[in-house]
Amino acid sequence: MKNANKYQRGYFLPPTCEMKWMQKDYIDKAPIWCSVDLRDGNQSLIIPMSLEEKVEFFKLLVKVGFKEIEVGFPAASETEYTFLRTLIEQNLIPDDVTIQVLTQSREHIIKKTFEALKGAKSAVVHLYNSTSVAQREQVFKKSKEEIIEIAVSGAKLLNQYAAETDGNFKFEYSPESFTGTEMEFALDICNAVLDVWKPTPDNKVIINLPVTVSMSMPHVYANQVEFMCDNLKYRENVIVSLHPHNDRGCAVADSEMGLLAGADRIEGTLFGNGERTGNVDIITLGLNMYSHGVDPELDFSNLPEITELYERVTRMHVYERQPYSGQLVFAAFSGSHQDAIAKGMKWREEKNCDTWTVPYLPLDPKDVGRVYETDVIRINSQSGKGGIGYLMEQNFGYDLPPKMREDFGYAVKSVSDHLHKELMPDEVLGIFQKEYVNVNAPINLIDYHFNRNGDVKVDLTIEYNGETKSLHGKGNGRLDAVSNAIKENLSIQYTNLTYKEHALQEGSGAQAVAYVGITTPDGKTVWGAGIHDDIIAASIQALFSAINRMEKQG
Amino acid sequence: MKNANKYQRGYFLPPTCEMKWMQKDYIDKAPIWCSVDLRDGNQSLIIPMSLEEKVEFFKLLVKVGFKEIEVGFPAASETEYTFLRTLIEQNLIPDDVTIQVLTQSREHIIKKTFEALKGAKSAVVHLYNSTSVAQREQVFKKSKEEIIEIAVSGAKLLNQYAAETDGNFKFEYSPESFTGTEMEFALDICNAVLDVWKPTPDNKVIINLPVTVSMSMPHVYANQVEFMCDNLKYRENVIVSLHPHNDRGCAVADSEMGLLAGADRIEGTLFGNGERTGNVDIITLGLNMYSHGVDPELDFSNLPEITELYERVTRMHVYERQPYSGQLVFAAFSGSHQDAIAKGMKWREEKNCDTWTVPYLPLDPKDVGRVYETDVIRINSQSGKGGIGYLMEQNFGYDLPPKMREDFGYAVKSVSDHLHKELMPDEVLGIFQKEYVNVNAPINLIDYHFNRNGDVKVDLTIEYNGETKSLHGKGNGRLDAVSNAIKENLSIQYTNLTYKEHALQEGSGAQAVAYVGITTPDGKTVWGAGIHDDIIAASIQALFSAINRMEKQG
Repeated sequence: MKNANKYQRGYFLPPTCEMKWMQKDYIDKAPIWCSVDLRDGNQSLIIPMSLEEKVEFFKLLVKVGFKEIEVGFPAASETEYTFLRTLIEQNLIPDDVTIQVLTQSREHIIKKTFEALKGAKSAVVHLYNSTSVAQREQVFKKSKEEIIEIAVSGAKLLNQYAAETDGNFKFEYSPESFTGTEMEFALDICNAVLDVWKPTPDNKVIINLPVTVSMSMPHVYANQVEFMCDNLKYRENVIVSLHPHNDRGCAVADSEMGLLAGADRIEGTLFGNGERTGNVDIITLGLNMYSHGVDPELDFSNLPEITELYERVTRMHVYERQPYSGQLVFAAFSGSHQDAIAKGMKWREEKNCDTWTVPYLPLDPKDVGRVYETDVIRINSQSGKGGIGYLMEQNFGYDLPPKMREDFGYAVKSVSDHLHKELMPDEVLGIFQKEYVNVNAPINLIDYHFNRNGDVKVDLTIEYNGETKSLHGKGNGRLDAVSNAIKENLSIQYTNLTYKEHALQEGSGAQAVAYVGITTPDGKTVWGAGIHDDIIAASIQALFSAINRMEKQG
Repeated sequence: MKNANKYQRGYFLPPTCEMKWMQKDYIDKAPIWCSVDLRDGNQSLIIPMSLEEKVEFFKLLVKVGFKEIEVGFPAASETEYTFLRTLIEQNLIPDDVTIQVLTQSREHIIKKTFEALKGAKSAVVHLYNSTSVAQREQVFKKSKEEIIEIAVSGAKLLNQYAAETDGNFKFEYSPESFTGTEMEFALDICNAVLDVWKPTPDNKVIINLPVTVSMSMPHVYANQVEFMCDNLKYRENVIVSLHPHNDRGCAVADSEMGLLAGADRIEGTLFGNGERTGNVDIITLGLNMYSHGVDPELDFSNLPEITELYERVTRMHVYERQPYSGQLVFAAFSGSHQDAIAKGMKWREEKNCDTWTVPYLPLDPKDVGRVYETDVIRINSQSGKGGIGYLMEQNFGYDLPPKMREDFGYAVKSVSDHLHKELMPDEVLGIFQKEYVNVNAPINLIDYHFNRNGDVKVDLTIEYNGETKSLHGKGNGRLDAVSNAIKENLSIQYTNLTYKEHALQEGSGAQAVAYVGITTPDGKTVWGAGIHDDIIAASIQALFSAINRMEKQG
C-alpha cells in the first residue's frame, strides 16, 4: 500500500524495560473484573439501550458475578442519570456489588455526578482526562503542566464532594489515551493525583491505564504497565487497572500480558462490545484462564443464555467466530477434525479421563452450555466418515461398521455437495433411512420359518418383482440359510457376507438394527440395514436391503 | 466456574527461552504471505464455496497481491481436485503466483496430489502429520518413532513424485498440532524431514509451525518459535512459517510475536475466516504494519469491495468490530470522541500534517476505502455538539457558531433518544432545517428598504399573526435597524444579538446562510438561521427565525 510513511509509531517505550513479566507463562488467579458494558459498551451502540434494557443487562452482569459495574456517565445525559437513580431507588444493587460512574474533571459535572449518587451505599467515582500528545496538542491545546492541573483539580473536587456526600466512595483515575502518552508524563500525572488522594490500605485508589486506542504490540504495552507498576507512588495501596480496546486485534493479549506485568484489575465487556473494534472480551479472558485450570470467578456456564440476552438488548450480533461464544467455534465440518474428535471423545470415555484433552476442542463445549449433538460435529460436503459415524452413534444410537461408515459418508457428502448446504442431524438420519434401511424392492420379505436340525433350514415367503414366491434354503446359521435360499433360487450373486447388529435403544422393548455388507461379482461392497422389533427379522431385512441396493445399482 | 481443575495447560515450554525477540517493538518488513482462504477458510464454512465462487475468490487474492495461495486438498474430494485442474487448465495462475496444495502423508494421497498438479508451472506441496501428545495417543495410537516415520516416509514420497512430475515444486512440512507437541520432539521431526529434503539456497524448504489449536499465551508461542528458529538444521535454507488459529483471541499477537521471534512467513485468511474461531486475519496483520509506517505489500486500499466479494462467496458476515474492516470500527457516536476527532481533523487541515495523528482513529479511514461523511461521525443519543457540528460542516457546509452547535446538539440528541434510533446525516440536516431555518411565524418578512445617512434606517413590511404591518426603525447597522423596528413596534423583548454568516457553497451564485442568537428576558439564548440568495435577506430571516422560535417557546 502506498504512503505507509504517512504513519509513525505513536507510542512511547518506557525508559527501562525489565520484562520480569515474561518469566510467567499463565495467569494464576482471577483479577478484579469491572464490566463497562453499560458505559463504554452502550455508548458504542447504533441504538443505545433503553432504561429497561439497561436494568435487564445490569441484572445479567450481577448474575454472571461482576462485583464492579460501571453504569454510565450520569452527568452526561438525562437517560444515564435516570438509570443510575433507578438502580439506587429501586434498590437493585446487591450489597457485594459496587457501581462505578465516570466523570470528566469539570466541577459542574463532578457536582452532578455526586448528586446522582445520593443514596448509593458505595461507588467507584472514575475521574479521567486525556493525556496523549495528540489530545494535548490538538484538542485541549494545553501544556503538560496545565493537563496535570486539570487532573489534580478534579482529584481535589472528588475529595471535597465525597466528604459532603453520604456513602462509601472509592476513587479511580485514568490518564485517558495512555497509549499515546510519554511514560514519564503518564507516571507524573498519576502520581500527582495519588498525592491528592493519598491512598491507604483501607482506602485504596484505582489507577487505570487504558488502551484508549491500541498503538503498539502487546509486549510493549506490558512493558509500559510494568514500568508504571514499578514506579507508581503508594503502590501497595494502588489497584492497577487495565482497559484495553481492540484496534489492533490484540486486546486479549494486552490484558493478559498486562496482568502478568503487575496489573490487578480488568475493565472490559461481554463479547468485547465497545467503541470501534470494541473493548476486551471478558468472556475470552475468563475462559482462557479456565482452560488453563484457573477459576475466573465469573460464571459463563450458560453462554447461550448470556448471548441471547446480550443480542436482544444491544441489537448487536455475536460474531460466529468469537472465541468460546460464537456459533461456529466448536464446530468441525472437516473429515479429519471430525475423526480426531470422535476418537478423542471415545478415548475420554474409555479411559475415564479426569482432564480434558480432546483434539480440536480447546474447551469442553458442555462447560459453557453448548451441546455436543448439534454444536460440534456438523455435516457438509467437507465432512468425513468419522464425523458422520460419530453423529449417527451419538445422536441416534446407530453404531455402523467402519466400512459402512465410509460408504454412508460418501453418500452424505454427495447429498450435501449436490444440495449445496449443511445437513442437520435429522437430514443425515433421513438419508440413512431412505438409502439403507428396510429397502424392499425387488425382494420384499413376507414370512419365514426356521427349522434347526444340525443345519438351519428356512422356508421363506417373499415378493420378487411383485410376484409371491416360496423359497427354501439351508446354511450354518439363520442368515446363511436365507442367503442361500436367495442365491440358489434367484439368479443373484454375491460373496463375503459381513454382519453386525445391536439394540437401538436400551430396554427389553427396544428395536434391533442389523447391518449387512455383501461383495458384488465385480468386487464392490454394498451395504444394507434392517430395523425390526425382532432381531431375526432385522437381520433378514438388512440382507435384503443390501441385495436390493446391489440390484438397483446393477 | 466449577471444575477448572478439569483443565491442564497442554503446551510445552522450550528447554531454553532466550527471548531475544522481546527487544524489538515492531515488525519492520512484510513477511511472505500465504492465503489459506480456499483451504482452511473454505473447509470451515457452513456451505463450502462452489467452483465458480472459488475461482472468483482466487482472482481476488491475486488482485490483493498474494504470491502464495493454498488452493485446497486436491486428493480429498472431487470438488477440490476439479478446482485445481480448472486453475491450471484455464491458465488462471499468474507467473508470479505459486499455488500450494495440502496432502497427508499417505502414498495414494500423495500420488493423487501430484496427478492433480500436472501442468502447473510451480507449486508448494504441503505435507503434514499430527504430532501432539493428544493426537499421538488418542487418534494415531503410535509412538514418537512411528510418528516420525510417517513424516519421513511422506517426505521421501514427495521427493520421488516431484522427480517424476514436470514442474517446479517447493516443499512444506507442518508438524500439525505443534502447540500441543513437546518442543524437542517437534524439532526432531522437523529436522528428520529436513534431512530427507536437504534444502539448499536454490531450493528452500518451508517449515510451518501451526497454532492448530491455541493453547498458550502469545509470548510462550514466540518463545517456541524462537527455539525452533535457533535449532532447526539448514536454518539458512528454511523458511519458517506460522499458521495461527484464534481459539484464545490471540492469533494476531501470536503471528506478530512469532515474526519478531524469527519467522519469515504467515499463513492466514482475509477477515480471519477459518476453522472454529478462525485463522489469523491477514488484513489486521497487514494494516497493523501499515499503521506503523511499514508497507505490508498487500493492497487493502478498497476494503469495502473486498468485504462485498468475501461476504457473497463465503456467505459469512464480517463482524462489525473486526479490526480495520468492520462496519463500526471507525465510528464515533459519543460526544467526546466526536469532538476530539473534529478538532483533530481541523488541526490536520490547518497544519497540513504529513503524518496521521487524529485522536480515536488508528488509521485514516480513506486509506482503506472508507468515507468520512458516513463512516466516522455517526449520530445518536450519545452524540455531542462537536460531532453534530462537524457533520453539519463536512457534509453540508454549515459552520454553526459554537453555542448554536451546543443548542442544536441537544435538539438532535433528543430526537434520536425519542425515536430510539441512529440519525442519518440527511435526517440531522432535516432537523436543522425544520427547527432553525427561515421560521416565518408569527413574524413573516415581506419587504424591506434601507436608507443610510449616518444611521441606517429601515422601512419594513411584515406579516405579524397574519396581519400586514409597516414598521420603521434605525440602528448602527442594517440588522440593528431591523431589530429595533421589531422591538420598538411589537411588544417583543430580547438582548445580546449575536450574528454570523457565510456563503453556503462556493461561487458567486451561492446562497448565504446567517445565524442569529438572541437572549430572552429570562436569560436563555435562542438561535435562528436564515438562508437566502441575498445576504441581507438571509440575516433578517435568521433574526426572525430566532424571534419566532423564542415566541413559540414562550
